[in-house]
Amino acid sequence: MTITFYDLAHDNGRRISPYGWRVRMALAHKGLDYDLVPIGFTDKDKLAFSGQTLVPVIIDGSKTIPDSWAIACHLEDAYPDRPSLFNGDAARSVTRLVANWVNSTVNPAMIKLIVGDIYKVCRPVDQAYFLETREKRFGMPLEKYVDQSDAQIERFRAILTPARLTLQDQPYLSGEAAGYADYCLFGSFQWARCGSPLKLLATDDPVHAWRARLLESFDGMPGKAMGFEA
Amino acid sequence: MTITFYDLAHDNGRRISPYGWRVRMALAHKGLDYDLVPIGFTDKDKLAFSGQTLVPVIIDGSKTIPDSWAIACHLEDAYPDRPSLFNGDAARSVTRLVANWVNSTVNPAMIKLIVGDIYKVCRPVDQAYFLETREKRFGMPLEKYVDQSDAQIERFRAILTPARLTLQDQPYLSGEAAGYADYCLFGSFQWARCGSPLKLLATDDPVHAWRARLLESFDGMPGKAMGFEA
Repeated sequence: MTITFYDLAHDNGRRISPYGWRVRMALAHKGLDYDLVPIGFTDKDKLAFSGQTLVPVIIDGSKTIPDSWAIACHLEDAYPDRPSLFNGDAARSVTRLVANWVNSTVNPAMIKLIVGDIYKVCRPVDQAYFLETREKRFGMPLEKYVDQSDAQIERFRAILTPARLTLQDQPYLSGEAAGYADYCLFGSFQWARCGSPLKLLATDDPVHAWRARLLESFDGMPGKAMGFEA
Repeated sequence: MTITFYDLAHDNGRRISPYGWRVRMALAHKGLDYDLVPIGFTDKDKLAFSGQTLVPVIIDGSKTIPDSWAIACHLEDAYPDRPSLFNGDAARSVTRLVANWVNSTVNPAMIKLIVGDIYKVCRPVDQAYFLETREKRFGMPLEKYVDQSDAQIERFRAILTPARLTLQDQPYLSGEAAGYADYCLFGSFQWARCGSPLKLLATDDPVHAWRARLLESFDGMPGKAMGFEA
């Protein structure tokens, strides 16, 4: 039974959802095939079957699972003979903190840098919706919210300090090999890379070298995905 | 062979080092006895044997180990038959990120709130040293650096968001039971509680309930330690 994966679609096949990228990396890690259903911002009615409106969603056999964390846990539990995403329950628990750190700290700093560029690569049919919902969320016009200043880049890089310190001592956040903790943070960098030409990382940053390794993983799949140069 | 544990000592037996508290909790978790050697700020010559000047340090048999992370890893590896601090190599790797998150993000926000109070509970003989080194580090008089405003408390609480979100879904950062990821963050709260009367957490915060559980752990050892009410 093939998995069906509903992921956010932008113009020209760009895949720009940090949480969708977590799932895409998790599926590759597990070596699982899937049928992709691209969903634009104004296609949300196509997700009605899932009882909610957000991508990513997967259907696996009789199960419909929204939410990237729930999807990762499902894949880990349903395919225990495939390479592990967490390597144990304790690591899964601590990885939840990593996911929450990315969600609540890294992503808000990143979105201020890239959301204006992402608007430009929305499907034309989605642009009005994207602008309206984002301006409502931010409480101001998009061009006022966006900040690509050197100061904001420095703030963003400072927020990455916990990852940077960790990657000075080990090649991946998950240790010797990449795991779901890595995909949580890497998903955000793919969100950025596929949607914005902005250079977020200094080339001598250990986070830059880590991202480069992940871009080459799975036969280069993440690096080949439609987007800008990392 | 009993372990010797060099930890930071303040006035009246207060133990006020976030990193010392990590080790104290780790030793309790492993159920290991030790001889405590309290070290004041102006007793650093007593650490010369360790080749550096910072507590915590342990001596275990022929090994001298400074640095709380190295100590935790030593205890885990040297006493594999005792309760595990990490529960596996993958969890250990991800816990390193948690330690780095606390070190680089939580502690700098916390110190602005509590360092003025900690100065007051230094041993009298250490106060001049403490003041001089801190003012040099902060580049300004201590009273100017300290900020106990509601706004700083709010900033601090916002920084805890990744832990708060995680503790909404599981009782400990390490999962169903406390582990070293918990002690990393809890050590900072003991640093605060033993040194400052400031109320850092709202009573309805999941982090407050988590801290209360840890204060009662190991027969209430952390809660009974000399300090202010949590």
